[in-house]
Amino acid sequence: MSKNPDGKQIKVGILGATGTVGQRFITLLAKHPWFTIHVLGASSRSAGKTYAKAVMWKQTTPIPPVVRDMIVHECHSDHFAECAIIFSGLDADAAGEIESAFRSADLAIFSNAKNYRRDPSVPLIVPLVNDSHLSIIPQQRALQNPPLKKGFIVTNANCSTTGYVIPLRALERAFGPIESCLVTTMQAISGAGYPGVPSLDIIDNVVPYIGGEEEKMEWETLKILGGIADGDDGVKTFDMHARHPLRVSASCNRVPVIDGHTMCVSVRFQQRPPPSPQQVREALVAYTPEAQSIGCPSVPVHAIFVHEEPDRPQPRLDRYYQDGAGVSVGRVRQCPVLDIKFVVLANNISIGAATSSIINAELAVLKGVVKVE
Amino acid sequence: MSKNPDGKQIKVGILGATGTVGQRFITLLAKHPWFTIHVLGASSRSAGKTYAKAVMWKQTTPIPPVVRDMIVHECHSDHFAECAIIFSGLDADAAGEIESAFRSADLAIFSNAKNYRRDPSVPLIVPLVNDSHLSIIPQQRALQNPPLKKGFIVTNANCSTTGYVIPLRALERAFGPIESCLVTTMQAISGAGYPGVPSLDIIDNVVPYIGGEEEKMEWETLKILGGIADGDDGVKTFDMHARHPLRVSASCNRVPVIDGHTMCVSVRFQQRPPPSPQQVREALVAYTPEAQSIGCPSVPVHAIFVHEEPDRPQPRLDRYYQDGAGVSVGRVRQCPVLDIKFVVLANNISIGAATSSIINAELAVLKGVVKVE
Amino acid sequence: MSKNPDGKQIKVGILGATGTVGQRFITLLAKHPWFTIHVLGASSRSAGKTYAKAVMWKQTTPIPPVVRDMIVHECHSDHFAECAIIFSGLDADAAGEIESAFRSADLAIFSNAKNYRRDPSVPLIVPLVNDSHLSIIPQQRALQNPPLKKGFIVTNANCSTTGYVIPLRALERAFGPIESCLVTTMQAISGAGYPGVPSLDIIDNVVPYIGGEEEKMEWETLKILGGIADGDDGVKTFDMHARHPLRVSASCNRVPVIDGHTMCVSVRFQQRPPPSPQQVREALVAYTPEAQSIGCPSVPVHAIFVHEEPDRPQPRLDRYYQDGAGVSVGRVRQCPVLDIKFVVLANNISIGAATSSIINAELAVLKGVVKVE
Amino acid sequence: MSKNPDGKQIKVGILGATGTVGQRFITLLAKHPWFTIHVLGASSRSAGKTYAKAVMWKQTTPIPPVVRDMIVHECHSDHFAECAIIFSGLDADAAGEIESAFRSADLAIFSNAKNYRRDPSVPLIVPLVNDSHLSIIPQQRALQNPPLKKGFIVTNANCSTTGYVIPLRALERAFGPIESCLVTTMQAISGAGYPGVPSLDIIDNVVPYIGGEEEKMEWETLKILGGIADGDDGVKTFDMHARHPLRVSASCNRVPVIDGHTMCVSVRFQQRPPPSPQQVREALVAYTPEAQSIGCPSVPVHAIFVHEEPDRPQPRLDRYYQDGAGVSVGRVRQCPVLDIKFVVLANNISIGAATSSIINAELAVLKGVVKVE
Repeated sequence: MSKNPDGKQIKVGILGATGTVGQRFITLLAKHPWFTIHVLGASSRSAGKTYAKAVMWKQTTPIPPVVRDMIVHECHSDHFAECAIIFSGLDADAAGEIESAFRSADLAIFSNAKNYRRDPSVPLIVPLVNDSHLSIIPQQRALQNPPLKKGFIVTNANCSTTGYVIPLRALERAFGPIESCLVTTMQAISGAGYPGVPSLDIIDNVVPYIGGEEEKMEWETLKILGGIADGDDGVKTFDMHARHPLRVSASCNRVPVIDGHTMCVSVRFQQRPPPSPQQVREALVAYTPEAQSIGCPSVPVHAIFVHEEPDRPQPRLDRYYQDGAGVSVGRVRQCPVLDIKFVVLANNISIGAATSSIINAELAVLKGVVKVE
Repeated sequence: MSKNPDGKQIKVGILGATGTVGQRFITLLAKHPWFTIHVLGASSRSAGKTYAKAVMWKQTTPIPPVVRDMIVHECHSDHFAECAIIFSGLDADAAGEIESAFRSADLAIFSNAKNYRRDPSVPLIVPLVNDSHLSIIPQQRALQNPPLKKGFIVTNANCSTTGYVIPLRALERAFGPIESCLVTTMQAISGAGYPGVPSLDIIDNVVPYIGGEEEKMEWETLKILGGIADGDDGVKTFDMHARHPLRVSASCNRVPVIDGHTMCVSVRFQQRPPPSPQQVREALVAYTPEAQSIGCPSVPVHAIFVHEEPDRPQPRLDRYYQDGAGVSVGRVRQCPVLDIKFVVLANNISIGAATSSIINAELAVLKGVVKVE
Repeated sequence: MSKNPDGKQIKVGILGATGTVGQRFITLLAKHPWFTIHVLGASSRSAGKTYAKAVMWKQTTPIPPVVRDMIVHECHSDHFAECAIIFSGLDADAAGEIESAFRSADLAIFSNAKNYRRDPSVPLIVPLVNDSHLSIIPQQRALQNPPLKKGFIVTNANCSTTGYVIPLRALERAFGPIESCLVTTMQAISGAGYPGVPSLDIIDNVVPYIGGEEEKMEWETLKILGGIADGDDGVKTFDMHARHPLRVSASCNRVPVIDGHTMCVSVRFQQRPPPSPQQVREALVAYTPEAQSIGCPSVPVHAIFVHEEPDRPQPRLDRYYQDGAGVSVGRVRQCPVLDIKFVVLANNISIGAATSSIINAELAVLKGVVKVE
Repeated sequence: MSKNPDGKQIKVGILGATGTVGQRFITLLAKHPWFTIHVLGASSRSAGKTYAKAVMWKQTTPIPPVVRDMIVHECHSDHFAECAIIFSGLDADAAGEIESAFRSADLAIFSNAKNYRRDPSVPLIVPLVNDSHLSIIPQQRALQNPPLKKGFIVTNANCSTTGYVIPLRALERAFGPIESCLVTTMQAISGAGYPGVPSLDIIDNVVPYIGGEEEKMEWETLKILGGIADGDDGVKTFDMHARHPLRVSASCNRVPVIDGHTMCVSVRFQQRPPPSPQQVREALVAYTPEAQSIGCPSVPVHAIFVHEEPDRPQPRLDRYYQDGAGVSVGRVRQCPVLDIKFVVLANNISIGAATSSIINAELAVLKGVVKVE
């Protein structure tokens, strides 16, 4: 079992512990080599009950014994004071206030909610892509009143954004800026939480619309793939890929699949001539994000697994490979309109949600951004 | 009930009558105002049996009484000599030889099979788009040895091609040539016939590959949307949209939907500035193909129905509208990479298959290409 | 088009018009030969809007033009005073009070809600089974304070009960009392309304439990198949099949099917020896309920359609046969434990819901229970 | 890791290695503590290729490295001479001859095929139920010509039979003979193999018929739950539960579920009064088959897991619990017609297929029926 820098167990708390994302956090953290679940937070309706009583458990593995009898607390920072790390699986309507209050209490929050993704001092981190954005955190702390010593918010991206920026990042690293990208998604129902999509709306159907999703993908991609600009005044800003403008067009669809977002992606490179499909395949296979080299325990062996079979990846067959912590790419071929097209599969509830937050926290520990006492 | 030009019942035969497409032909033709089912052809395994005994009926309406006790014949042209029109729902492995033999017997074939779609003297007709291509038929007859008086083959397009070339045609008519088009399909299982897609491959899954489908869409689109060039030698050739080269990139996916292909389409026009989304919507609503103005009885009121709701069209709700004889378009909006993007839904077993063949035959009757005695 | 006794159009109102059952009422009544939709009632949230604006329409046919611009009213009896018949598609939490208030206003209500099904003066009528129970209505009117002249409540049964009591009734008519019945259901998601069953709960799944459903089936069956006893004091009571006690055991399951409840039924007759499978088949085919002989326009030609193929009925293929107004039975065979077993398919949203209410109203008109002015 | 009696690795072969059941055998055996995959057999079409080339792999985990480059052989016993155990995942049309030939070559076969289940000298063993039937094997060997020293055939039961005989056995052990049993199944598509059920037949559908399945369940149950009678002549015969006749009525349905057969079971005991639901629950929880006490490594901790929640077991949530090696029971309650009813879930591809064969082999090793050299 891998060791964290100090060889200590790190106490973590989970906000929204009874929800869909919270259940995933618990499933993953219960077997984590570094992190120990210390406090569970949920709504006042759940507070005071044991976790087993409070939750409507919907995972395919049983409730981990370690949390079964833990008493659920309300999401007040007092209960979480001993936690070095807080994972937030809160819904957007609750996350805004609670995460802000927790940060004010000098706590380190890794949030799956969308509320602070567009905040100019909050990094939006896909752990296999842009962990370098953690460098904004000192500025985030300094901007709080009073300035913080340890607290911050790190967000991870929308589940559909997460999947396809990983291969885009690999391609930009190998071949330079991408100029335009057209992506059509076929997204799983679990992306909408629980109860989420009514069965009458999706069995034997496709819904070619997910409210706000296309805008999120088009905007988040720029923040994630862009860099951080240092102003003359010493102020850092996310540059939104501005030095090489990147146009993104997303079309988002819901399909009757339980887990796993499949995406058809076409890209055009700035570089002429563009790379060949074979060069693209090799670059994807070779891609090694820092989270791998630095030793994050939840990072998969293959950040990007490239399929050679013509009909892969498929969500049902490939979504749980490597516990869903990497992405699968297949069908790399020429695009008659742009340059190259391919198919991406990302497990929306793993790398697209809780797993991202956890690897972000591992990165923050290894880079000393989280202070482990 | 509408009248054909001569007010007579027209005898028709059906090849492949026991197959999936054949069953659709029978369902539609049993209530057709002009056409009378006269002969049913199928494999030697079915020949000699009543239709009810020969078929494994899979439609949601019962076998029409008019064919129930009809004896099925082998697909030899002798049995079909009295038919003014032959509809072919044959599989590709049988269609090549049989359709050729029927044409040699001076019969008029409207085929749903792919075998002759690329033949330079066979028109590939989507009835709401390019019925003008029927003008190649005299040349096709002249090329046979001996030359034919009445016989010919007309094909209709692949089910996925059919759906999206209808709005493309409407847009080219209104705004001039389209320069490039990127289409991602989410195709129904019925497009693969019966038994077709194994359930283990598609429940809770997406298969991002349909063998040969992308090539068909990319090629057929050019033949259908292109014109016919008259050579100096009087020879007509399909120009494949060559005067204004059109680049098409198709990504084809199978999804767990029974009927109805959904497609996300992005287009770039030659015309600068391109039309606005509102202009595109209006052009789609206004589109009136010749099959409507000329009075084909199977043509729908709305060739293209444009939805205003943000989440439509959806296959389960919209595929049977107008008996699936038109197409639905929704979500017309700007594309950040090309110009305009939208969603198309086409019923693959209606306008994408048997209904196309039938309207093609209606067009041929009204234009005098089929000789009704 | 069939005529009602007086050849007049009969004005009807619909309560819960924007809900799932309400949408079905509208779809069916918009083309009804006798009934004219006169008023639409819904919650205060919808009141004042046009129907098209108020409803989230989920049917596969468009909103009927006749109601599109009709203004929706709150469910107060004042708005419905001109209606000879009120159809109620209200949810159980609203139906109790509103239906009672409407009855007090001397209105005739045909309700799909469960609230009054167990009321000892309210008939629970499956129209192809026990329309004779309408005879309780004078007593129901007399019990109100003040006694009513025209008003009453008639309920129809639970969607799962409805389907299987029709063949049970046919068997009792032919072979005398059934002694015990074991039924296992596989119920469609539309039975739970909208949004109803979350897709995460039912795709690739079976839920072997539907709250309260088994109790409803076991109890309602006795009320429906039982008779009405006349007490010495002139008071009529539902006898709950008491003269020949009938034991019913129901196991209810939810399956990923859009429409159509499939049920495996085993019965034991009192009569020894029991009828043979062939006798049972013949009795089912021969069954002619009064609603057919009396001329209800919405009654199907085949109250019970008996399939001979070994693998039928199937919901996807058979649920829309006869607009879902009859039931399908197949696989009639011996049961090694009880006497006879078979499979029933009933369309839960047609004969299992709105269609039942409508035929009940037709019966009440033809029998003079509803006064048409 | 558990030890086999001799602490040696045991070489095993797999027949039908490229098929659905074969793939499951490989997935399970690749990580088995005792058994080492030594030879793979398949049809002549696959022979000579590496396994990776020969197979169309459909599991959700990758092909185990240990077999990836193994050369596939034809199913001739010569290639398997070194194997102490042969697992057969052959289809029924091939299994008859091949398994017989292998037995004649003095090999020990554990077969998932149905061919020899009704053979009076072949035991039909559900490993958590009737491993005592291994005692017939000396007689089976003696009946061969020439008599065998080591060879034999052991079969496991149909996937649907397997699941429900486990709780039936637990109930008979606790409360004495069951007199009658009515079972209605909702079976997963994977039970039909690959390609198996066409998607057009099962999406949004239930098929209330599986050819031969009801007969198999009704017959196999008697052989499995019955004993072995010793004749005066020393000949053993399976008594088919004859001392206490047991009537079984099965109704089998296919539902759109990938893996996991759900069954609604009602039983009547001979013992009067019958046990209460609570007594039944306790008996199910307490059930400890010999395979557990004797130490088979593939046996789960809970042979029968009893759910208390009202809506469990469900296939999607519970089928992979304990790797699918046990069964889940829920909703134990009184049956108004028989005595007790409950719901069983069994993973048809684990305990219902390959896992059963493997535990049977473990039992045979531990009991010395298989000779390990």
